[in-house]
Amino acid sequence: MPEQLTFPAESVAVLEPRLPPKLELQDAPRSRPFVTLTFATSLDSSLSLAPGVRTRLSGPGSKAMTHYLRTRHAAILVGVSTVLADDPALNCRIAGSSHQPRPIIIDANLRWTPRRSDKVFEVCRNGAGLAPFILTGADASDLPAASVELLHEHGGKYIRVPSARSEATGRLRFSWDDILSALQAEHLTSVMVEGGGQIINSLLDPAYHKLIDSVIVTIAPTWLGQGGVVVSPERVTDSAGVPLPVARLSQVSWHPFGDDVVLCGTLRV
Amino acid sequence: MPEQLTFPAESVAVLEPRLPPKLELQDAPRSRPFVTLTFATSLDSSLSLAPGVRTRLSGPGSKAMTHYLRTRHAAILVGVSTVLADDPALNCRIAGSSHQPRPIIIDANLRWTPRRSDKVFEVCRNGAGLAPFILTGADASDLPAASVELLHEHGGKYIRVPSARSEATGRLRFSWDDILSALQAEHLTSVMVEGGGQIINSLLDPAYHKLIDSVIVTIAPTWLGQGGVVVSPERVTDSAGVPLPVARLSQVSWHPFGDDVVLCGTLRV
Repeated sequence: MPEQLTFPAESVAVLEPRLPPKLELQDAPRSRPFVTLTFATSLDSSLSLAPGVRTRLSGPGSKAMTHYLRTRHAAILVGVSTVLADDPALNCRIAGSSHQPRPIIIDANLRWTPRRSDKVFEVCRNGAGLAPFILTGADASDLPAASVELLHEHGGKYIRVPSARSEATGRLRFSWDDILSALQAEHLTSVMVEGGGQIINSLLDPAYHKLIDSVIVTIAPTWLGQGGVVVSPERVTDSAGVPLPVARLSQVSWHPFGDDVVLCGTLRV
Repeated sequence: MPEQLTFPAESVAVLEPRLPPKLELQDAPRSRPFVTLTFATSLDSSLSLAPGVRTRLSGPGSKAMTHYLRTRHAAILVGVSTVLADDPALNCRIAGSSHQPRPIIIDANLRWTPRRSDKVFEVCRNGAGLAPFILTGADASDLPAASVELLHEHGGKYIRVPSARSEATGRLRFSWDDILSALQAEHLTSVMVEGGGQIINSLLDPAYHKLIDSVIVTIAPTWLGQGGVVVSPERVTDSAGVPLPVARLSQVSWHPFGDDVVLCGTLRV
């Protein structure tokens, strides 16, 4: 019997104004997906104690919230580092919900080799999740045939996205505009960006604030200490080199939730 | 006319259980001062954009809260870096309160040379604040005579505290037990530890959790970005070298406060 989570109706009501319009209510087609950025951190803004170390930060209510949010989005998006570190199922385990979001994995440089035993395929075979769409910068001719076949068999695929090579790292990178265009082309009308640190920090760059419809951050009353996987975007400075705040939420509300707090806001102005 | 702040009665009521007992209610003498740790950070746990850069993080309500908290403590404590960077007045500017807390400055290595024009002496001469007690590791014979005289004239002084030399930095350091003993010897029954980053991070070390009666953190819904002055204590690991969370608050409550949230809890178990 797979784990089933429940999320209370009063909490649903609190979050509803922060979520994408329900499909039946969408009057006009949007030019890009509704973007919700959501994650949980410690007080010192760490997602985990170290890369690849699963860290129980928030209480059980927050886990149910994450799964409830997944019922309200067409897609959920994570970076390849999260997949390599956590082997996540990327499905929705809310009791009574039949909706499964499409997992989107950002893997510009093909670092992940999917395997049949990965949880995301296991839940897919059990009818409890969808196969991933992997966004990559690689040419079709460079895709490993076995991976293509494994994805195809489960209903997933690779999607090529325009990329640029980072001078600093030599790796391919996407712009968020191109990522969202790729989702839009797949008729995915909403996406929940879940992590990890690099993905979140890149989305918090001021160039992308206009794309972020909703931000939902859970904060747990703990300090993980130095050396964790930290959410903190790259520094921004004015023309004189003086540092400026990178992002400030508007339409802010805070919702205590057990020992944690849930912060809702938007970066789109 | 000096700035006067007001702090609403309903907020006073929220904070009251988190504060040191009022003097008239103290039945038994304590063996050490009541310690409140309080500061304001961004979502990425920064106190400021860079050392010495004053950063307006939280709303006007939070500033009034800080000054209200100062009315409820016998002493307020900051590190010398904060004094060098900010030239703070370290007084209380709540309308209608006659109480002024004693400023305590941690300056183990005598980095600060007090000057008559410093704000802390200016407010003292205006009857709007007390002169600082400077905790130092230096011998009395090494104290600059002009500084001793300036402090004495305003009612302040140097206090010698036992110190150890850090192998990493070559600088003198205090233990918090010795700092609190020094305050206790001065009949300072409560202290509010305000910053900066080094002071806060050192107090969050697990060795000192038993000393921290109350933690009051204001969080502003903004990301300052990498390179700020960060609150994040030194990493703690188990005997196998696996990182562990450094601190977790208990008796937690969250209080939305304008666009900010105020987190209350304790580390003393």
